[in-house]
Amino acid sequence: MDNVFIKYVGKKPKLKNPIFIEGLPGIGNVGKVAVEHLIEVVGAKKFAEVYCKDFPPQVFINPDGTVKLVNNEFYYWTAKKKNQRDIVFLTGDYQALSAQGQYELAEKILDVVEEFGVKQMYTLGGYGLGHEIKDPKVLFATTDADLVKKVRKFGAVFRKNEPGGGIIGASGLLLGLGKLRGFEGVCFMGETPGYLVDPKSAKAVLKVLTKITNLGDVDLSQLEKKAKEIEFIAQQLQEIEGLSREKTDDLRYIG
Amino acid sequence: MDNVFIKYVGKKPKLKNPIFIEGLPGIGNVGKVAVEHLIEVVGAKKFAEVYCKDFPPQVFINPDGTVKLVNNEFYYWTAKKKNQRDIVFLTGDYQALSAQGQYELAEKILDVVEEFGVKQMYTLGGYGLGHEIKDPKVLFATTDADLVKKVRKFGAVFRKNEPGGGIIGASGLLLGLGKLRGFEGVCFMGETPGYLVDPKSAKAVLKVLTKITNLGDVDLSQLEKKAKEIEFIAQQLQEIEGLSREKTDDLRYIG
Amino acid sequence: MDNVFIKYVGKKPKLKNPIFIEGLPGIGNVGKVAVEHLIEVVGAKKFAEVYCKDFPPQVFINPDGTVKLVNNEFYYWTAKKKNQRDIVFLTGDYQALSAQGQYELAEKILDVVEEFGVKQMYTLGGYGLGHEIKDPKVLFATTDADLVKKVRKFGAVFRKNEPGGGIIGASGLLLGLGKLRGFEGVCFMGETPGYLVDPKSAKAVLKVLTKITNLGDVDLSQLEKKAKEIEFIAQQLQEIEGLSREKTDDLRYIG
Amino acid sequence: MDNVFIKYVGKKPKLKNPIFIEGLPGIGNVGKVAVEHLIEVVGAKKFAEVYCKDFPPQVFINPDGTVKLVNNEFYYWTAKKKNQRDIVFLTGDYQALSAQGQYELAEKILDVVEEFGVKQMYTLGGYGLGHEIKDPKVLFATTDADLVKKVRKFGAVFRKNEPGGGIIGASGLLLGLGKLRGFEGVCFMGETPGYLVDPKSAKAVLKVLTKITNLGDVDLSQLEKKAKEIEFIAQQLQEIEGLSREKTDDLRYIG
Repeated sequence: MDNVFIKYVGKKPKLKNPIFIEGLPGIGNVGKVAVEHLIEVVGAKKFAEVYCKDFPPQVFINPDGTVKLVNNEFYYWTAKKKNQRDIVFLTGDYQALSAQGQYELAEKILDVVEEFGVKQMYTLGGYGLGHEIKDPKVLFATTDADLVKKVRKFGAVFRKNEPGGGIIGASGLLLGLGKLRGFEGVCFMGETPGYLVDPKSAKAVLKVLTKITNLGDVDLSQLEKKAKEIEFIAQQLQEIEGLSREKTDDLRYIG
Repeated sequence: MDNVFIKYVGKKPKLKNPIFIEGLPGIGNVGKVAVEHLIEVVGAKKFAEVYCKDFPPQVFINPDGTVKLVNNEFYYWTAKKKNQRDIVFLTGDYQALSAQGQYELAEKILDVVEEFGVKQMYTLGGYGLGHEIKDPKVLFATTDADLVKKVRKFGAVFRKNEPGGGIIGASGLLLGLGKLRGFEGVCFMGETPGYLVDPKSAKAVLKVLTKITNLGDVDLSQLEKKAKEIEFIAQQLQEIEGLSREKTDDLRYIG
Repeated sequence: MDNVFIKYVGKKPKLKNPIFIEGLPGIGNVGKVAVEHLIEVVGAKKFAEVYCKDFPPQVFINPDGTVKLVNNEFYYWTAKKKNQRDIVFLTGDYQALSAQGQYELAEKILDVVEEFGVKQMYTLGGYGLGHEIKDPKVLFATTDADLVKKVRKFGAVFRKNEPGGGIIGASGLLLGLGKLRGFEGVCFMGETPGYLVDPKSAKAVLKVLTKITNLGDVDLSQLEKKAKEIEFIAQQLQEIEGLSREKTDDLRYIG
Repeated sequence: MDNVFIKYVGKKPKLKNPIFIEGLPGIGNVGKVAVEHLIEVVGAKKFAEVYCKDFPPQVFINPDGTVKLVNNEFYYWTAKKKNQRDIVFLTGDYQALSAQGQYELAEKILDVVEEFGVKQMYTLGGYGLGHEIKDPKVLFATTDADLVKKVRKFGAVFRKNEPGGGIIGASGLLLGLGKLRGFEGVCFMGETPGYLVDPKSAKAVLKVLTKITNLGDVDLSQLEKKAKEIEFIAQQLQEIEGLSREKTDDLRYIG
């Protein structure tokens, strides 16, 4: 087994000029939630599994009692309308643990999608604000300067020098390494507090992404429902925190 | 020396359709204690040593003053009755230190047992509860859904989505990587507080394992004896902890 | 992609007996600031980018919204006067994260500059004092004993057994590994508090470097300007710290 | 450059049935101090330098202002009397930083000494007690059981199951990996508090080692002198610690 190992499931799909959309775990799990939702609602099919020695040495346990070695997974979807394009999706359980593993995994992912003819990609992630946000914007960065104007039209926001720390992890690396290969790409980053999984931010990202890819009116109601559940949990956590802060304040007053 | 190096001791055994049983150090050392006990009582013979650059750079000192480079060890046992099968055992001093080492070691272990014709395996470990448990159950997970029903009959317990975090380390990885090679397998996890080595949990695991492998009435009295010793130590530790907590409570009262 | 990957930009330059000047991020960013300033004022041209799996998996975002995979970069400059020599510069975003990465990157960098005929080098860094310094001196160390006398004449200071901990990172490693290849070299270390980026120390280093390389009167006014800005920030930070210390003192007095 | 790189200095020495003596930095630096002292007093000559990507990326600065890339070094000494044997020594600045580096370095070191015909070795280290010791004993462990009796005669002490944690690092690994190649060897461990460099413990180790190797009356007076200096420093540190403890006690009393 190489450091990264691709296991194809069934026949390799034949795709025509596909675009690549990536969403792996990260801040607020925004990218992963968005891509997993999209895979489900458009009915994309898994065609390959990615195993990596730099993932945790771990299996998950499925509801039926069987084990699943942690991995990343490729899905594909073929265009239904003239203005759409075939899509290769990537999502998964983990990003690689080390810097070197991140580079090797990203290179292998690019090898795979390049084989299917990918030349454009969208990578999805979260932009952690560290505070609550009512109406999360979607920031972006691109491989090419002429893409900036184009992407802006679809509702994504460009703020000079933001995020200040750049983009860390697969979403940035795929774009950066892809650019060296001549890929075009955009990274969409949904604003998120970053404390909890954030379906609201994932929804904001998908609104932009479905427009730019002509996927049309994709059903986002499940994300809204999940977002409300998370909001409820967040409120409860805040109340608990609030109570404990009050207590501390009392103590300070007394002390 | 490769990253993982197998040193055969004497002639390679000839085995007929053997099963593979693994128990390495982990939570409560349940797997290691169980397999080492089984090796002893059935009289299995060592046939190979496994050295790995991702084990600690360490030698142990034997009672006779000689050094032993830390390793994992393979043992074999040949079936005595018609309803039994030959067995390959693996136990050892350590698991690999890094994620990459874990993957490389597990792959090499599977290479070795595959060479001997292994197609089924049982991996043994502990399921850390973080609290005392009077009568430890044995949870399990499998490579194949149809094994779940079968294994249940032998007294192991299936609880949906448990363990929630999956299985981390060799016991899970061997199952997960083995499944990719077409191996069948079951991981048995004895419930354990997880603080100390836990012969009681190892005994519970062996009760299930000896039934499912038709090993019959294996003498588990030594494990019972060790379990009582550990229980005594655990009580003493709790008393000490109790005393120190009382003290803290006193201070709180005064403060 | 190898662990270290060189991407040439345009045609490889033809250089005559060039010297190599390195300045990467480090204590006070002294080396990086010095080399970047020199590249700018002499108008050196980029000819190669260095990517490394041991850099953080990160892209920066350019002011125009495009991404830039973190890297190191080679620049060249051709001599304008008879007493000058061609120069290869190296600067960049990061040093390698691990010891092994540091060695591999330094070896690759030496391979590249050796190809261009480099036999002499100057590596630039900071010498962290941990306290403010009004007039930073420039310490140095060399590959060859007979260089010590020569370098002293240009205003650099030799203090026996200083820095006591030697030189850690690229500046030291390039010298040490280069010496094994028969390179001659000097490491200049500007004294710096080490808390913040230090243009004043970079300026001190450049004063020595431009003399020894016959670069003549290089405009250092931008560094002076930046140094004043940093001084202002440092004062503000000290005031804040001073206030908080006063508060603590109050509490101590009361307590 | 491989992960470990040997640079021979001058001609390779021709040695007859040499023994190998290793002493690298470790607890109390006992092994390093002992071997460096022995190299000096017998007048051994350096014949090779060992560089490793798993050493810190660091150069030291020599008193003359030149840099020295951190390394390990081989020395040799040829027997002067009939009952003596040629010796290969190894000492150095660091041990490898990671487990994998430790294994690779130890394997390479064994490759080198095997080439010179080494079949026996002594590895030297410290045994950290964590408390002061007036008269440090020298513990030992061997590759072969029949060596235990033999070594005891020379004043080294065998205590069953001590050190309990085995031997970690190069001294243990060289013995353990050497045993797999059929080498004979003994590790001598001088008892040491382990806080500071410990010439007294190194002296105790050398007393045993010079007897067993028939090196005769080697001058250990320099070690005695250094031991007294360290003792003086240790006392001063204890006084400072004592004072600060008193202060804390005062505060407790008041509080």
